[in-house]
Amino acid sequence: MPLLVAEAFAGCRCLVTGGLGFIGSNLALALSAGGASVTVVDSLVPRHGGNRHNLDGAAGPITIVEADVGDAEALRGIAADTEIVFNLAGQVSHVDSMNDPLFDLDVNARSQFAFLELLRAESPEAVVVYTSTRQVFGRPLYLPVDEEHPVAPVDVNGITKLAAEQLHLLYASLYGLRASAVRLTNVYGPRQRLRDDFQGFLPIFVRRALNDEAITVFGDGRQERDCLYVDDVVECLLLAASSPDAAGEVFTVGNDERLSLFAIAEAVVAAAGGGSVDLVPWPPDRDAIDIGSYFGDASKAKRVLGWAPRTVLAEGMARTVAFYRSHTAQYR
Amino acid sequence: MPLLVAEAFAGCRCLVTGGLGFIGSNLALALSAGGASVTVVDSLVPRHGGNRHNLDGAAGPITIVEADVGDAEALRGIAADTEIVFNLAGQVSHVDSMNDPLFDLDVNARSQFAFLELLRAESPEAVVVYTSTRQVFGRPLYLPVDEEHPVAPVDVNGITKLAAEQLHLLYASLYGLRASAVRLTNVYGPRQRLRDDFQGFLPIFVRRALNDEAITVFGDGRQERDCLYVDDVVECLLLAASSPDAAGEVFTVGNDERLSLFAIAEAVVAAAGGGSVDLVPWPPDRDAIDIGSYFGDASKAKRVLGWAPRTVLAEGMARTVAFYRSHTAQYR
Repeated sequence: MPLLVAEAFAGCRCLVTGGLGFIGSNLALALSAGGASVTVVDSLVPRHGGNRHNLDGAAGPITIVEADVGDAEALRGIAADTEIVFNLAGQVSHVDSMNDPLFDLDVNARSQFAFLELLRAESPEAVVVYTSTRQVFGRPLYLPVDEEHPVAPVDVNGITKLAAEQLHLLYASLYGLRASAVRLTNVYGPRQRLRDDFQGFLPIFVRRALNDEAITVFGDGRQERDCLYVDDVVECLLLAASSPDAAGEVFTVGNDERLSLFAIAEAVVAAAGGGSVDLVPWPPDRDAIDIGSYFGDASKAKRVLGWAPRTVLAEGMARTVAFYRSHTAQYR
Repeated sequence: MPLLVAEAFAGCRCLVTGGLGFIGSNLALALSAGGASVTVVDSLVPRHGGNRHNLDGAAGPITIVEADVGDAEALRGIAADTEIVFNLAGQVSHVDSMNDPLFDLDVNARSQFAFLELLRAESPEAVVVYTSTRQVFGRPLYLPVDEEHPVAPVDVNGITKLAAEQLHLLYASLYGLRASAVRLTNVYGPRQRLRDDFQGFLPIFVRRALNDEAITVFGDGRQERDCLYVDDVVECLLLAASSPDAAGEVFTVGNDERLSLFAIAEAVVAAAGGGSVDLVPWPPDRDAIDIGSYFGDASKAKRVLGWAPRTVLAEGMARTVAFYRSHTAQYR
């Protein structure tokens, strides 16, 4: 847990949207451990990753508000009383976004537009850190991908997340909201939803290995990815909230450790001591939105935020597996 | 009127969304004159530019459906029966988009998401030409601006229009919809809403000159723009619909004739034989979303579509002024 960084927020009134979800809950726990006053907003949309057990064992009291971030009436008082907003609420499933584009737009764009209007009215000088996604880039034109790379989303989720990201930066530019955006890549670790297949490939790999089942890798498995352990992501978000030069900026984060999907699957199997790896042809619906190899260039985040990922996959996956083994009832 | 191009659509079942608006009505009239079977969908949102008089004098019958493009029930039968969609419906006011971001998102993104889902279901092989905007680029990093220029919208309208544009291109890539997008710059000509100030600066200039009033130019008036006469834009949209290489592509259009705002205002005064030009300081709300000089590089549209603008400002403005002089009751 990135406790040293979190201690900088002792006494701060922090709001974590999507705070019952995977990354949001790890962040809320770190803030609470660091002495912050933490409120969590989460709408607990089925399959979006929210889990009330995710805040079990918090160091201090965490206020939980069950609401959509677009619900201005429910959030007006909270927004007015908040100094720092970690804005993680949203749908992350690429496949779901293709099956129901309007719902994805409502959750990822319309609710965020309403939330930013609320912050502009009630908390115009708040620090806001928004979690965007590498999906906005689409198929990489070059690697590693940095902030200058053109955006060309290849799924609905990338389009709607980009619209919300752009509105954050626009409100920073026009209204003085101290908003920044961090484009995340594949994140793994404790408190991720393992029960189904809508949170990206990493939790699927982890569940299958823990169940001693075969991990399915599409194609030849040579596509490369950079995986981020959730504590490293939490530290990045905390640094974005505390860095004076972050406002109005977008950061592409990534890990210098780049591995093929096949190697990642083997690392999960090794950490779990179970399961196996199967290569199978691409299903058509996945192939259509696949982007090939992707890894990010985190130079800007390193330079401006002083951030660097510290966890290699073998180490992070060992911690991940240990967590799920000791919390079987809540996650599996 | 670009009649020669429009004749290529004789007998085609064409749908024009926003077809009671400025560009949409000029397009619908051209298609009708060329012998196409034309249906127009328009929700006649107050201030969005729709005007039933815009289709006065059509060469043939034009079916008018008063509905939002996001109203799938109202449009299902029409969508199923359409070969070519000219998709122009939307809000164009940058100031309105800042005053009510959620409404702008609903009109420009949510309705378009619903409309594309409808086309995917009912007319998956339709040709679709979407009118996007240069506003997606934000402040130019270089001039003239081409399709490779990064997108960084500086108002809500640019964000929502970009989301809809990206969905068109995504559906072209994934589902075979033959969709393309044309990023328009400042368009002027007959059938534009002159009554108020929400359609960009050109109709304001025209109205003031016709009323023998002073035209207000913000700042020093040296910011350059490329203006497009509406017939040139209609021709571009027709070419995008008939070009086999347009699907999946975005086109930035512009005019090689680039003029300062001050020179444009003087040209309007000259064409109208009335009014004057006043330089005044920037109002704060406009300054915040101003982008400085802008002009587009139309090389790709010229190469792929065989398009070129043919109307210089003095000529187009003379025709524009003559039109409004002879249609005072309907437009002023």
